[in-house]
Amino acid sequence: MPTNRKVVLKSHPKGPVSRSNFDMVSEETAALGAGQVCVKVGHLSIDAFIRTTLDGGGFHQSAKLGGVVPALGVGTVVESTDGSLAIGDIVTGPLCSQEYAVLPAAMCAKVDTALAAPTAFLGALSIATGLTSYVGMKYVARITGGETVVVSGAAGAVGSLAGQVARLLGAGCVIGIAGGAAKCAFLVDELGFDAAVDYKAGDVSAQLAAIAPHGVDVFYDNVGGDVLDAVLMNLAVEARVVLCGAVSQYENMADVRGPKNYLKIAERDASLLGFTIFHYPDKHAEATTAMAEWLSSGKLVVREHVEQGLENFPAAVRALLDGGNTGKFLLRVS
Amino acid sequence: MPTNRKVVLKSHPKGPVSRSNFDMVSEETAALGAGQVCVKVGHLSIDAFIRTTLDGGGFHQSAKLGGVVPALGVGTVVESTDGSLAIGDIVTGPLCSQEYAVLPAAMCAKVDTALAAPTAFLGALSIATGLTSYVGMKYVARITGGETVVVSGAAGAVGSLAGQVARLLGAGCVIGIAGGAAKCAFLVDELGFDAAVDYKAGDVSAQLAAIAPHGVDVFYDNVGGDVLDAVLMNLAVEARVVLCGAVSQYENMADVRGPKNYLKIAERDASLLGFTIFHYPDKHAEATTAMAEWLSSGKLVVREHVEQGLENFPAAVRALLDGGNTGKFLLRVS
Repeated sequence: MPTNRKVVLKSHPKGPVSRSNFDMVSEETAALGAGQVCVKVGHLSIDAFIRTTLDGGGFHQSAKLGGVVPALGVGTVVESTDGSLAIGDIVTGPLCSQEYAVLPAAMCAKVDTALAAPTAFLGALSIATGLTSYVGMKYVARITGGETVVVSGAAGAVGSLAGQVARLLGAGCVIGIAGGAAKCAFLVDELGFDAAVDYKAGDVSAQLAAIAPHGVDVFYDNVGGDVLDAVLMNLAVEARVVLCGAVSQYENMADVRGPKNYLKIAERDASLLGFTIFHYPDKHAEATTAMAEWLSSGKLVVREHVEQGLENFPAAVRALLDGGNTGKFLLRVS
Repeated sequence: MPTNRKVVLKSHPKGPVSRSNFDMVSEETAALGAGQVCVKVGHLSIDAFIRTTLDGGGFHQSAKLGGVVPALGVGTVVESTDGSLAIGDIVTGPLCSQEYAVLPAAMCAKVDTALAAPTAFLGALSIATGLTSYVGMKYVARITGGETVVVSGAAGAVGSLAGQVARLLGAGCVIGIAGGAAKCAFLVDELGFDAAVDYKAGDVSAQLAAIAPHGVDVFYDNVGGDVLDAVLMNLAVEARVVLCGAVSQYENMADVRGPKNYLKIAERDASLLGFTIFHYPDKHAEATTAMAEWLSSGKLVVREHVEQGLENFPAAVRALLDGGNTGKFLLRVS
């Protein structure tokens, strides 16, 4: 078996995560058990949820001290003891922060590279990014047409797709919230958002009130904190707030700052709708088909931000949390 | 016209409201304009929303400095310039903190004292209390049967009814959260709740987990703050949190403590549903009929906490906020 280089968690971060919380180790790749595959990792998906796994209390999983860090990836099968996957197949799955992942074949999904490039299966065609955008807008927010829709983290992987999905589902006005003039220009000029609000350029609530004086019908929140509070002040009656994530809180999950303005939800007969994509298995096929069609027809614009080298995994996670990417953040491992 | 004694707002409270924020004044009752009535106030309803009107930034209305304080009441028409109401009619409406209210007849509703005693129209048959309980459980929480339902402020006017309504709509298990052993005994022994959690007797989340190990399907929240956070930790998948009020926050509306555990709403595919009863005018008749039937057949148990004298209006509001009542808090004015 080849040598496997991996990034492991050395210590739980106290506050902001840094390179010092990780170690790089090498060891012989484990031998395969029955029904397993060895996948040579091509790209890892750098997602905000990774931060929540580092404290030992993640939403869905936690990194163990001395173990690899949960991350989705795409790669090539280099060994298999399972009839469903063959050497050379391109697969996605929870490959984690390493060069070679040995895992049950059942945890991997073979991707159809005729449909899109492999990295699309970490972005527009992935469960955690593309399908989350589609299902969140169609089945949680229930966009039916004409709504004023606001998306936070709008220049990020999920946000940039969610805003475009809202428009494709018929939203009347799509507004993105992002940090800095360059990201805001990206939203309007490249993705076709109707407007953008720069949260670094002053009062978000006032900016939003000027753009959407009749209020916000749908808010798709990836950020939480001050941004969530600012949008809550601008809800229209019967508004739906889709709770997708809260990246502003992920470095301080032991003392999350709850939304101070949550009583606006009562005052405006609105609702705050939580969801996880795993709760909608019956919508995955429809979402994949729709996203693939929009992608191939050019109706969905995708930007990838790619860093190089497994050793930069800690820096990539840090950069993501600092808003250092525009579009889908990928780490090219091999 | 008779002399009108009234309690007026002298100053906006800084923190906890106290008697010093009010004055008692007397003046001749105003002459009636066209379409108006003069109502001699019988009872005032002492409700938590009153506190939100005192800062100048209430949900629906604000008390003005030097003016009477918003409050619902029931009383007798003693003069009328409107054909719809006659002298001697018993009416409810926003009579406010005074002995004689002069207001448009259209803002009053004549009550049918054959249906129930006048004070019931401030409680089980009122929009702000009884109808809020019924509509919140039936049309917001959408109780269909079998649910585990938790109500906070459960010994209060809305909570005590909301828990009983949930049971009458078919909930499988109704749990009330209240402060102190006496209130908890009232919930179980007199109202027929399945269990009660005393928030003054330790960890609410742990107590709830012991009583409802499979989680909470519906939470009807009147309290906010720590109580809301404790219940959020115990949500079942697809739980509905009905946001009716937040009495724990009403003395500090400029710096509300948002729910720290709101991300559980995402993790559990749950929802936080805001509502105001004014948003459901088409359900008022149904709710009134149902509540009146349950009341007259003895299926709804009602407890009234009655204080005496308009001069005790400030003390009554203070006592309500301190949890000093069990059941509907009324102030007998005449």
